[in-house]
Amino acid sequence: MDRVLNFYPGPSELPLSALEEAKSEMLDWKGTGMSVMEISHRSKEFDEVHNETIALFRKLFFIPENYAVLLLQGGASLQFAMIPMNLIAAGSTASYIVTGRFSDNAYKTAKKVSGVHLAASTEKDGKYFRIPKPDEIGIREGSVYCHLTSNNTIFGTQWKSFPDVKGVPLVCDMSSDILSRKVDWGPLGLVYAGAQKNLGPAGTTVVVIRNDLVEKSSRDLPDILSYKVMADKNSLYNTPGCFSIYMMNKVLKWVERKGGLDAIQKRNERKAKLLYDVIDEAPDFFITRVEKESRSFMNVTFNLVSEELEAKFVADAKSENIVGIKGHRSAGGIRVSIYNSHDEKDSETVASFMKRFIKENG
Amino acid sequence: MDRVLNFYPGPSELPLSALEEAKSEMLDWKGTGMSVMEISHRSKEFDEVHNETIALFRKLFFIPENYAVLLLQGGASLQFAMIPMNLIAAGSTASYIVTGRFSDNAYKTAKKVSGVHLAASTEKDGKYFRIPKPDEIGIREGSVYCHLTSNNTIFGTQWKSFPDVKGVPLVCDMSSDILSRKVDWGPLGLVYAGAQKNLGPAGTTVVVIRNDLVEKSSRDLPDILSYKVMADKNSLYNTPGCFSIYMMNKVLKWVERKGGLDAIQKRNERKAKLLYDVIDEAPDFFITRVEKESRSFMNVTFNLVSEELEAKFVADAKSENIVGIKGHRSAGGIRVSIYNSHDEKDSETVASFMKRFIKENG
Repeated sequence: MDRVLNFYPGPSELPLSALEEAKSEMLDWKGTGMSVMEISHRSKEFDEVHNETIALFRKLFFIPENYAVLLLQGGASLQFAMIPMNLIAAGSTASYIVTGRFSDNAYKTAKKVSGVHLAASTEKDGKYFRIPKPDEIGIREGSVYCHLTSNNTIFGTQWKSFPDVKGVPLVCDMSSDILSRKVDWGPLGLVYAGAQKNLGPAGTTVVVIRNDLVEKSSRDLPDILSYKVMADKNSLYNTPGCFSIYMMNKVLKWVERKGGLDAIQKRNERKAKLLYDVIDEAPDFFITRVEKESRSFMNVTFNLVSEELEAKFVADAKSENIVGIKGHRSAGGIRVSIYNSHDEKDSETVASFMKRFIKENG
Repeated sequence: MDRVLNFYPGPSELPLSALEEAKSEMLDWKGTGMSVMEISHRSKEFDEVHNETIALFRKLFFIPENYAVLLLQGGASLQFAMIPMNLIAAGSTASYIVTGRFSDNAYKTAKKVSGVHLAASTEKDGKYFRIPKPDEIGIREGSVYCHLTSNNTIFGTQWKSFPDVKGVPLVCDMSSDILSRKVDWGPLGLVYAGAQKNLGPAGTTVVVIRNDLVEKSSRDLPDILSYKVMADKNSLYNTPGCFSIYMMNKVLKWVERKGGLDAIQKRNERKAKLLYDVIDEAPDFFITRVEKESRSFMNVTFNLVSEELEAKFVADAKSENIVGIKGHRSAGGIRVSIYNSHDEKDSETVASFMKRFIKENG
């Protein structure tokens, strides 16, 4: 069938050019007579794609030189464990800001590993509709880092700027908005993200870590869990997920062709505005409990007046080739995920559909 | 260019049918209008391929019902850490048999996690050319498991049958010979393998674990490192490496079409014999220090009289479309890796080349 308009929250749509290139190279990559999946991760051919991916990501995301870029496995969930294992020495602590289910997972995982402190939570009846105000955040003195999640995929909230945490390095899970906008690297000690929203298919986890934190990290860990070992080995300590790195390479090249981060950010802002404008014009029909200043530019969430109407919305959308918009089971309602790969036309299509849906069902 | 004869030690050759199917489904998988990389891991479409992969692997490998099959990330290296973290409770120990670099890594990683015991080692001057004799193995009393590596990829040795360890559950790294031959599940408590030799591309790690060990495993670990959590969540605790599982599915279906494990095992034995016969006919030319009873059926290793001649062997082979046969840097010489995907003709081609090479250079 034709390609659908795919708004899944992740794994999610990839740039068509990346898929087409992978398709054409499947039996013979770069004249090797092999797929990229069949060649040694120690070969010069793979080394090239690996290093190019890291270099291109550094360039596109304006990563300062004093940070290492690691390509790991295990998803953000493994980072929930590796971060405290590596960075919290005996007797020290870290602070966590909880604004959604994944930041809560990060906090709970860290608690299993070490003593950590809850600096803020915007949880209310198991749901999260806002980012905390500055005066709600209480960083525990002596924290070696403060953890936060830049974008809440499930409920659709996003930090618009990072909070002032008085020089404590920020550790930030950017799984669902990495490379979607410029960031101020100043306060950031470590950034991590599963690739499967903005960077490529599932299977690679990007970790950007400031060199001083690499040096301070624990030396008592198994090699595979050690930032120091992974940094020293350029993420090739063991066999990486070669194909997902190769796909990430293609996605990054697509970002570059699109004009880089600046162009991508502007496009993302326009895409989000198209949908939020429709919501704001019919707030009794498209009901959003997300605080206006906390709205995500990646995941636009709303409810309709009844579950029946939400089911009809999903079904009608499907008949127009729009898929992946059913809200997360813990949030309900509708979620339209508009990651980097989507263009304005995709948002326009959804906005038009939403307007038509009001007319027919309002 | 044409497809090469690819004898890389892993990542390594995949069945051509698996690549061709992936190619044809790249833009539209199963009529979804998406690639398998673009769909949610919570979708019914992905769930189907995930569950089918596990079920087919159980069936083809004759895995008894009282074992769980997990599809994880992080490679065998992460298992080196997860095994002792999950299974060695405070005050208990485990025994390790070291027959190569990776089993040594497993042992050293376990030592970082817990107190473990070296039950045997066949190391000699940093090299490993044999599997230990039964009377060389000393299992520490009270061991909760005994770890061994079934096939040594680097030096080319392989256990032909498992040692008698008096009822202690065996934990076996089968990364380089999983699903290449029938195994006796009786003594096995846990089997694990990176997928990238016999099962698919890199990115998936298979763990087969007896239910009683799942139940006995530690409850204090971060979820992502817990066998219990991963078993309870059917390996979908977080986003898995979806594409590599999808490819594993295709590789398993290919194994099934080839006649299953019995046919694959016979084919593997014939493939190895073809090469070892040439070696045994010219032992002064193709020099192998691997003990005859310890020879691997997956990785055939040998040296020539000089490094110059080895370089010529690799170059001449390349001119005949044979690639990936340079030995590991710690072993030197030549290594021909003949995993499941290779057919007899591939071994015949190498055997003929070897015979011609003697004539021209002997």
